[in-house]
Amino acid sequence: MQNVERLESNGIFITFKGLDGSGKTTQLRLLENELKKRGRSVVSTCEPGGTLLGKRLRELILDDDLQVAPLAELLLFAADRAQHIQTLIHPALKKGQIVISDRYSDATVAYQGAGRGVDARLVKQLVKLATDGLKPNLTLFFDLPVTESLKRTNSRAVLGQEKNRMDKEDTEFYTHVRDAYLQIARREKQRFRVVDATASPNEIHAQVIEIVDSFLH
Amino acid sequence: MQNVERLESNGIFITFKGLDGSGKTTQLRLLENELKKRGRSVVSTCEPGGTLLGKRLRELILDDDLQVAPLAELLLFAADRAQHIQTLIHPALKKGQIVISDRYSDATVAYQGAGRGVDARLVKQLVKLATDGLKPNLTLFFDLPVTESLKRTNSRAVLGQEKNRMDKEDTEFYTHVRDAYLQIARREKQRFRVVDATASPNEIHAQVIEIVDSFLH
Repeated sequence: MQNVERLESNGIFITFKGLDGSGKTTQLRLLENELKKRGRSVVSTCEPGGTLLGKRLRELILDDDLQVAPLAELLLFAADRAQHIQTLIHPALKKGQIVISDRYSDATVAYQGAGRGVDARLVKQLVKLATDGLKPNLTLFFDLPVTESLKRTNSRAVLGQEKNRMDKEDTEFYTHVRDAYLQIARREKQRFRVVDATASPNEIHAQVIEIVDSFLH
Repeated sequence: MQNVERLESNGIFITFKGLDGSGKTTQLRLLENELKKRGRSVVSTCEPGGTLLGKRLRELILDDDLQVAPLAELLLFAADRAQHIQTLIHPALKKGQIVISDRYSDATVAYQGAGRGVDARLVKQLVKLATDGLKPNLTLFFDLPVTESLKRTNSRAVLGQEKNRMDKEDTEFYTHVRDAYLQIARREKQRFRVVDATASPNEIHAQVIEIVDSFLH
């Protein structure tokens, strides 16, 4: 039934990826505002945490007291994704809206598969199951060197902002994650575009608009 | 690595199943006490909710405000199970303890597969994934007619006790669930035993002890 529904949808699904500190959340707001100015109907969301259930799951995943086992963590991400798609993304796409999501399933492949050493085949199976095969039309990867990402997130921590379990992982972990993203970019050139996130916010926004415009027209 | 660990475990894993009102929780306590009296090392647990994470997930699953989608619910049950096995059941079995669990994976097959109409092959894949193939050595199914189960749970609700989403399902749902359990019992005669839960608590306890004794000796 869901396959039939998906064929009927005429919305556009754009996802944003990037290591922490890549400025993707700022860029998501800038793109959302620009598209709305042009009269487009836009829904912006994030993963994990795009739904009420997702927000609660995000709290659990980040709670050190719960000591979530790696496989359980993977399944919680998958549950969040299933809820996100079935209750938010899919209904919006069916209405013809542009959905922009801060992170989506590639994040799981990158973090869980490459980063935490969970069996890659297993991760793929789960992603496929949870997404029912729904893929973004366009994915923007905000790329910057791992050392730069760590420098930016460390200065955030100094400023007293959120410092979670993901932030605590080491350089090696982030290098795996970045490599995994760049590998996807090489494999899926049309869908998965790399944005230079070392530039200024305005310059990055210009890159984003250029890519999105070339996609929309 | 987990397969190797499982081969080394010398504990015994017993699970209890039954529709609501079948008295299985009472019977679990009685069996636990009896085995402890005999000097056995026993760990009793439950699913969902046997771990701290599981308790939090159970709250989410039962929270009507979250409107958990069927596939997301299935994945939350799977996450609970993975955490339960990796952090509680498996370590106890490795120490040679007897683990008695109120519900286990057959419950998912029965509730989700038969009851809610989620694809049975999908449910099986997930159960296998989350349990890493760990099966109970012995499962007791506390059987009573669906009408009797509903009568007992309704009188519980009158007494002001917990009335959750599971309780609200209709007779047809429970009939599917019961049939699914009885089908497992016919397929796996050695492992999956049916207890007549219409008898008195003492009589049921006697049945339980007889089955467990024949298994332990």
